[in-house]
Amino acid sequence: MAFKLDARLEADTVSLTKRGSIDIRMMRDARYHWLVLVPEIEAAEEWFDLPDVAARALFTTAQESAQRLKALTRADKMNIAALGNMVKQLHVHVIARHIDDVAWPGPVWGVGDAVDFDEGGLKDRLIALRAIL
Amino acid sequence: MAFKLDARLEADTVSLTKRGSIDIRMMRDARYHWLVLVPEIEAAEEWFDLPDVAARALFTTAQESAQRLKALTRADKMNIAALGNMVKQLHVHVIARHIDDVAWPGPVWGVGDAVDFDEGGLKDRLIALRAIL
Repeated sequence: MAFKLDARLEADTVSLTKRGSIDIRMMRDARYHWLVLVPEIEAAEEWFDLPDVAARALFTTAQESAQRLKALTRADKMNIAALGNMVKQLHVHVIARHIDDVAWPGPVWGVGDAVDFDEGGLKDRLIALRAIL
Repeated sequence: MAFKLDARLEADTVSLTKRGSIDIRMMRDARYHWLVLVPEIEAAEEWFDLPDVAARALFTTAQESAQRLKALTRADKMNIAALGNMVKQLHVHVIARHIDDVAWPGPVWGVGDAVDFDEGGLKDRLIALRAIL
């Protein structure tokens, strides 16, 4: 069965790059540096639904992305999470957290509304993130 | 440097079993089936702070625990997360979520207060969890 990105992920995120079958995307929310990793494997909802090789690749990509994003953003803490309560399609959040961000020290999900990038801001952000991934 | 469990983790969780250097603990909150995995490695805060072998062992243990806990609890979704915004010592949450739990579909952190087990309930829960881990 062909992979099709979930409609909400499609609307809320933009693709930065791919690593193997993992689409590394960015949340359209200027409040955070927030990546969303989507393995392009149909019907996977839990991390352990993936074949072993794909599960480990997703883990490695999440760790490497987190390490690079932490360095880029000088984050105080990285949050890595597979939740999927609302969007069932398997995806992993990699979020740079700062002690002065709006949700700190709570989790980011459900806190206020996403803040749009302006056109220049989006372009700059995409360039910065693609450069480290 | 000797490992010492963070005081808040010590207060909020109870040890179920150990797998290698990973202490598999249970959150003292009767509202959820909620595991907390703590690699007994001093000074690790981010998953990628761990040596590779330990990082992969933590990943494997998180996935296996999640799969078994899902089967035990017939969970609608598993949540796996390394946040650490409040407790810096590296720990990974493995939480069985149900569409009728009090926090659904939001994340569990920061929602109301933990509910104590009664003595019999705690004993039964520990037996059930240790049997699958």
